[in-house]
Amino acid sequence: MLHPYPSQLLGKAVDGFAALPGIGRKTAMRLVLHMLKQDRQSVMQFTEALTRLVQDVKRCAVCRGISDTEVCPICGNRLRDHTTVCVVENVQDVMAIEGTQQYRGTYHVLGGSISPMDGVGPADLEIETLVQRVQTGGIQEVIFALSPTMEGDTTAFYIFRRLGTLPVKITMIARGIAQNDELQYTDEVTLGRSIIGRQPFTGK
Amino acid sequence: MLHPYPSQLLGKAVDGFAALPGIGRKTAMRLVLHMLKQDRQSVMQFTEALTRLVQDVKRCAVCRGISDTEVCPICGNRLRDHTTVCVVENVQDVMAIEGTQQYRGTYHVLGGSISPMDGVGPADLEIETLVQRVQTGGIQEVIFALSPTMEGDTTAFYIFRRLGTLPVKITMIARGIAQNDELQYTDEVTLGRSIIGRQPFTGK
Repeated sequence: MLHPYPSQLLGKAVDGFAALPGIGRKTAMRLVLHMLKQDRQSVMQFTEALTRLVQDVKRCAVCRGISDTEVCPICGNRLRDHTTVCVVENVQDVMAIEGTQQYRGTYHVLGGSISPMDGVGPADLEIETLVQRVQTGGIQEVIFALSPTMEGDTTAFYIFRRLGTLPVKITMIARGIAQNDELQYTDEVTLGRSIIGRQPFTGK
Repeated sequence: MLHPYPSQLLGKAVDGFAALPGIGRKTAMRLVLHMLKQDRQSVMQFTEALTRLVQDVKRCAVCRGISDTEVCPICGNRLRDHTTVCVVENVQDVMAIEGTQQYRGTYHVLGGSISPMDGVGPADLEIETLVQRVQTGGIQEVIFALSPTMEGDTTAFYIFRRLGTLPVKITMIARGIAQNDELQYTDEVTLGRSIIGRQPFTGK
């Protein structure tokens, strides 16, 4: 059990860290004491980075992802394929897909997925902005790269219905067994999908 | 693999969190995105708490612990027993002992323990200030509440030697089997010490 702090300044800083997800009071205390050991300037740089972030960061006018500028570097890059839009839940997914270096199109960041349990409905997500992008024309393919969960599937199905009449190809990223997975330990749904979605073996 | 961030502001904030001990880049990203979802004011409160902490926090003039004031609330409390000083490594240890509600004396916070491997020598710790406190008089007992490790033992022995000629009783907190430990799984050193340090059974 941790007793009340000997310093209110310390207590408030610990409270701040402990309010973050996945950080308990003991970890928060450890982080704050680490900061006290650092030179003052590096702590100032840290707080300034956070302050500038929440004050100056924007949503990209096109993809609704996080951006420093009106239009993010990806949407503003003329060398990318602007006829293809990959729909993701959040900016981490953008970075994960960019990390594969297998995709040269653009993105649309929904900001989450439809989850009635968490009180998140279609209006809370960037779905209308996606529909508008497709309506404006020039987009030939919309790829769903959503979580393989009930929420992800619901979101994909909802957007699919909303885009229904528009002349655009709608695809989803492949589901199947992951690299280095062992078949015998793969769950039935995944294994079943990987058989249904089997692809030509090209020997490559 | 995480790709370069779509926003430099985001990247810098993530870098700041990832520089903290035990926080990797993915956790840092999650924390920063959580902050972006919060209202701006609570982030400002957080950064202000950190800024004020590093700017205004002091070391208590008496015990060298963290304090908002010249003398911390414990050292400034006339109701506590100022003839007894419990020597601890850090402020978390103070809070842990305060949490037991079994101690009414004061503390002395060393700021670590002697560890040649980590380049920490006696001069890096608040040992001279402790010796001065004892030399000044009025202290009857010094209790070592240091880690039961090589470093803690070395530190205790060093301070014991430094205090050697001064008229003060020197004790250490009891080592033995912990509450709810099972004897058969207790290590030999601990079990051995608990036998050597056996105490009268009072039936209480």
